[in-house]
Amino acid sequence: MEIRTYLREQKEIVERALADYMLEACGPFAEHISTLRYSLFAGGKRIRPILCLTAARMTAGPELTDQDVLPTACALECIHTYSLIHDDLPAMDDDALRRGKPTNHAVYGEAAAILAGDALQCFAFELMSNEEICALPASTRLKIITTIARAAGPEGMVGGQFLDVMHEGRDVPYDLLRTIHAGKTGALITASVVAGAIAAGADDSRIRTLARYGDNAGLAFQIADDILNVESTSEQLGKAAGSDAARGKATYPALFGLEESRRMAREAARNAQIALEDFGDRGAPLRAIADYIVTRTR
Amino acid sequence: MEIRTYLREQKEIVERALADYMLEACGPFAEHISTLRYSLFAGGKRIRPILCLTAARMTAGPELTDQDVLPTACALECIHTYSLIHDDLPAMDDDALRRGKPTNHAVYGEAAAILAGDALQCFAFELMSNEEICALPASTRLKIITTIARAAGPEGMVGGQFLDVMHEGRDVPYDLLRTIHAGKTGALITASVVAGAIAAGADDSRIRTLARYGDNAGLAFQIADDILNVESTSEQLGKAAGSDAARGKATYPALFGLEESRRMAREAARNAQIALEDFGDRGAPLRAIADYIVTRTR
Repeated sequence: MEIRTYLREQKEIVERALADYMLEACGPFAEHISTLRYSLFAGGKRIRPILCLTAARMTAGPELTDQDVLPTACALECIHTYSLIHDDLPAMDDDALRRGKPTNHAVYGEAAAILAGDALQCFAFELMSNEEICALPASTRLKIITTIARAAGPEGMVGGQFLDVMHEGRDVPYDLLRTIHAGKTGALITASVVAGAIAAGADDSRIRTLARYGDNAGLAFQIADDILNVESTSEQLGKAAGSDAARGKATYPALFGLEESRRMAREAARNAQIALEDFGDRGAPLRAIADYIVTRTR
Repeated sequence: MEIRTYLREQKEIVERALADYMLEACGPFAEHISTLRYSLFAGGKRIRPILCLTAARMTAGPELTDQDVLPTACALECIHTYSLIHDDLPAMDDDALRRGKPTNHAVYGEAAAILAGDALQCFAFELMSNEEICALPASTRLKIITTIARAAGPEGMVGGQFLDVMHEGRDVPYDLLRTIHAGKTGALITASVVAGAIAAGADDSRIRTLARYGDNAGLAFQIADDILNVESTSEQLGKAAGSDAARGKATYPALFGLEESRRMAREAARNAQIALEDFGDRGAPLRAIADYIVTRTR
């Protein structure tokens, strides 16, 4: 399959839905809503919602529509975007550029950027819970919310970011690096495929299989990110290159060198693909995404 | 009824539950979890969870237990606490003192405080969604999550905070002041009583009645807060007194003077009490809380 065509088509589906769900920017809160829209429509790759949609389709019967899954898929993108806005703040990574555009706080100021992140996280949970937006059965919606809340929270994404920030400039052993990466990147990527499978009503065994795919794809994604931060230019990345080394961040290239990191990324991507063997042809899009994750240039 | 005794007893119930629900501080995320616990157990009044519990009891049959409502009540406190942590940041109100203790960022640094707030908001949604924590029927849990997400999000609490920050030092007409206060304070207070009533399975008419109580109690609460910021000392408040005027914030005393503000606070509290007339004696605790809101000294 032509993965770049697939990703482009899926990205359009996600962006149309995101535009539909986002609150209209009018009334007293219009200016606030524009600060959310600025980052939400700044040209992200939409990997997490695409993983969610793809996992749902490969585990569902024909009765499941994209419309059933899109609120969850878009909620994942809202959570990812909020985490980027907060990550970029001066007190965190202090980045001026993101997705090739000035970061949220560079445009609207720090206070507005903190609140934009807070609002996007909250809005994500409304997307998943509100029956006027998400038509899945109540128990399914709750399972999805719990899965994503656990992945994004203190023992998932935010916990990983905390460890990441606290260990800047310090020696980080390999097992801690794994914990940091599994938290800050892996947890939400795994939750993306798992939430898609839950939306599709997949059984526990398929959910476990997809979680194994997600764990490995998430690891591959983060190692590839670490490598891109070393090898690419800021222009290619749309964000500051070389920033990890400058901040003394724990990364795979710092611990293992570039060549071994590349090997580890490919191995993780392959493990993700192997996890899907039982799915046969239906697993092709997720297998192609695993390839894309380690060959992308931004 | 002796309202201070009631509030003290309820506060203990809430704090025991919060301690039960909070993640144990061990493993790789232990340090992060401690930063959440620091602010969560810094001596808050627990007004929102108490409103939630009280509204649930006055609308429920005898089969509803505190245990059914406490996950929601504690989620409200997690959301309130996250908003305080972010409010106190240097980029926002830049406060060094909160509830008589150094603010979260003063102890752990800005990055950790941003992440503590993010984690607490996320954890709130896990408390409400996870069936191992909250035993209410699925459809009830979802209604509660949607209600609280709408109240805490871009068109509720966070939206109000955005308007508040953006209008510092500017002339704010009365209708905008109402919008700011209804957002930043009123929405979550109304959601507290409404969520309690939903937990108790109250019908729409009772929910509307409680929302009217909440809107007025929330207004009374915010006017009283504005007044305390002018009249009290930092020692009494446990946070910086006089900070609103110093930052050129839109407040009732700034717009109407102290005496008229006091009258308006009492009027709002009375309107909250009048809304409960149909509840008869069962409404006594919420009526007493409305009184407490405008007579408290911190």
